[in-house]
Amino acid sequence: MILIKNAKLLRPEGVVEESLLIEDGKIVSIGEKDKSDVVIDGSKKAVIPGFFNTHTHAAMTLFRSYADDMVLHEWLERKIWPLEAKLDADAVYWGTKLACLEMLKSGTVFFNDMYFFPEAIARAAEECGIRACISAAFFDFFNPDLLEENLKNAVKTLKAIEKYDVLRSIGPHAVYTVSLDGLRRAAEIAEEMDIFIHFHLAETEREVLDFRKQHGKLIVQALDEIGFLSGRLMAAHSVWLEDAEIELLAKRGVSVSHCPTSNMKLCVGKAIKYEKMREKGVNFTIGTDGAASNNNLDMLEEMKFAALLQKFYYSNPTLMRAEEVFEAATVSGARAFGINSGLIEEGYEADIVLVDLTKPFMQPEHSLVANLVYSASSGCVDTVIVKGEIVVENGKFVREDEHKILEKAGRVAEKLKGSEEQSS
Amino acid sequence: MILIKNAKLLRPEGVVEESLLIEDGKIVSIGEKDKSDVVIDGSKKAVIPGFFNTHTHAAMTLFRSYADDMVLHEWLERKIWPLEAKLDADAVYWGTKLACLEMLKSGTVFFNDMYFFPEAIARAAEECGIRACISAAFFDFFNPDLLEENLKNAVKTLKAIEKYDVLRSIGPHAVYTVSLDGLRRAAEIAEEMDIFIHFHLAETEREVLDFRKQHGKLIVQALDEIGFLSGRLMAAHSVWLEDAEIELLAKRGVSVSHCPTSNMKLCVGKAIKYEKMREKGVNFTIGTDGAASNNNLDMLEEMKFAALLQKFYYSNPTLMRAEEVFEAATVSGARAFGINSGLIEEGYEADIVLVDLTKPFMQPEHSLVANLVYSASSGCVDTVIVKGEIVVENGKFVREDEHKILEKAGRVAEKLKGSEEQSS
Repeated sequence: MILIKNAKLLRPEGVVEESLLIEDGKIVSIGEKDKSDVVIDGSKKAVIPGFFNTHTHAAMTLFRSYADDMVLHEWLERKIWPLEAKLDADAVYWGTKLACLEMLKSGTVFFNDMYFFPEAIARAAEECGIRACISAAFFDFFNPDLLEENLKNAVKTLKAIEKYDVLRSIGPHAVYTVSLDGLRRAAEIAEEMDIFIHFHLAETEREVLDFRKQHGKLIVQALDEIGFLSGRLMAAHSVWLEDAEIELLAKRGVSVSHCPTSNMKLCVGKAIKYEKMREKGVNFTIGTDGAASNNNLDMLEEMKFAALLQKFYYSNPTLMRAEEVFEAATVSGARAFGINSGLIEEGYEADIVLVDLTKPFMQPEHSLVANLVYSASSGCVDTVIVKGEIVVENGKFVREDEHKILEKAGRVAEKLKGSEEQSS
Repeated sequence: MILIKNAKLLRPEGVVEESLLIEDGKIVSIGEKDKSDVVIDGSKKAVIPGFFNTHTHAAMTLFRSYADDMVLHEWLERKIWPLEAKLDADAVYWGTKLACLEMLKSGTVFFNDMYFFPEAIARAAEECGIRACISAAFFDFFNPDLLEENLKNAVKTLKAIEKYDVLRSIGPHAVYTVSLDGLRRAAEIAEEMDIFIHFHLAETEREVLDFRKQHGKLIVQALDEIGFLSGRLMAAHSVWLEDAEIELLAKRGVSVSHCPTSNMKLCVGKAIKYEKMREKGVNFTIGTDGAASNNNLDMLEEMKFAALLQKFYYSNPTLMRAEEVFEAATVSGARAFGINSGLIEEGYEADIVLVDLTKPFMQPEHSLVANLVYSASSGCVDTVIVKGEIVVENGKFVREDEHKILEKAGRVAEKLKGSEEQSS
């Protein structure tokens, strides 16, 4: 039992100063002054829902700031892929631990990940006490034999990570790396195993034009024909879509992960059609993408980029109001993964962040939500509670030695870089 | 004398681990292990130049998150102007103190300000130990009588703030609020008094089109004809410029303050022509603008917005590399105001920030500059030294009681809002 006293709660109807009681991982009561074994003094703090980061490649923290300001194919071919070729489970484990530390300390309680060595990711997430959905990613490069082999491996991986306290997804990478047959099979497996699907959709114009040239139809229409679209699907990026495709995504209950920082840094050439998605009812969520193309995993920053990119690109300052992007970064992300979280409400999961209101950038308090979206940076994150357990307290990670994680991840990153520079 | 030991210094040629000695406000020696009365252990810290924020309306922190996501004229007319009409010197003083606290704690050592009640601003800045250039702003609304009166007041104000430890500028607001005659007179006063000029230039398309319609020429050409352009001029925004105008700015030694977050939030419709400015040799600097249109004064965040906006808008990921935007935010800002600062070099002013490298987002250390630009948030600012004096230590402001500033500014902001809501 945890009782938070004297704090300002960000409720759906506004900010109220009330006590909040957590028991068995849930918010059991608001406004009650119950006894509790743990009492947190919430004076000069706000209680807000934690963030749901719906598209990451967490272990790419190892490549943070390793290569920037480059043209996409040079960046991938000369810098990222050669290093990724040297990854092993230990490297991914430490890269993911660093990512979990960074995410928790910036108020993120959940991440939806796709990367190599899923079991290492699942172990890192479970140890750090963060919620996660871990993907068994695969490519088939349009080779039926490779498809069979990689699907078999993916299923094996999914079974291997079942024992961890994480959600699971199958991760057919994208339409330019996986055949339509591979996508269809992935959707069938997701249905059979009752898991999610993690997929990159319409990130660049080239992907869309190439697909249309080859198949004579829009990507989302083709995906619908093979039964790929459902409430299980988290479609990352989803930038280059026609209105008819957006309508279809909404109709099938697909969730979208918008990654504005990555979109800007990698120059995808367009801003996501948020207004159309909102109008049609697409479940709109926010992701940071990997640290190699961002270069952090900070959802507070990502919300600001999302809102400002919409306003600027569509020349409309009223687009994506602070309340809307905050909802996308919290409750909409939770909803995508069937988690009853993301609101400060009785009966909701206790995935909660205490924000320090004595940071200058959090003053004055005209609007807590606008301060969070447009002004806050991660330094205001004081305490983070995931599933009712305190994992960050007074800005410190309490489960493990932070310095050990930084040192191990730093050493792994240096070694990867060193081995590459020797071999090139 | 302050000796910083064991830290990683961000030198122009790269990162080196050396000691650094500060005496009489200057970096007197690098690499010497001298005795000193104050020794700072720089282990796991980086020593970087502090930021120069070249366009602010600092006291607008009072209106942070008071009104967002609105159309410009409604925002100004219904929300900002009615509150500004109720400002007094005390309100501006506390708003500026809050701004100085926020800026110092996020690594900013200088701000170039334009707002009401300049003497209150100067006093707040001096007390906080931050460098500043304070403007005596004026409008004439194309009324010659008003011009005479406001110029007289501006000169009076400039004399009144001479006693403070700040730089001074005259601030003719913009071409849509000040006549060409007013601008010419401002330039003459700047010359006579040997001070700077702070001015809004070509922020919106409408400003540019209206001017051209009325005068039949480009704004910068008209400004050149009246002798307005010189090394004294800091031209904020400078978005809607023709190439010929950029060339003229470069030729006359004008500095530009780029405010990307404000430009995006207020939907100015275009990204500044950075590449052309770089090519022509314009002194390119970075500003946050006021907190009402940002909503913070965080130069770490501003650098990321600047670099990503360039890349995205011009579809070129190689535009505005991390090193370039870092230079714009530091040494180029210092240069604009004739301050020999912004580099970790012997003989330079000791305006220095110690950055905590044990924050997860600062690891691994492939590139310190890219980590600062693309990954860092203000939580990593550990110690700030301005003119050789420690003003922030271990994340705490040492000159005054932080809580008193927050409380006073918060109370002033509430009162302004309350009085407005009563009267409307």
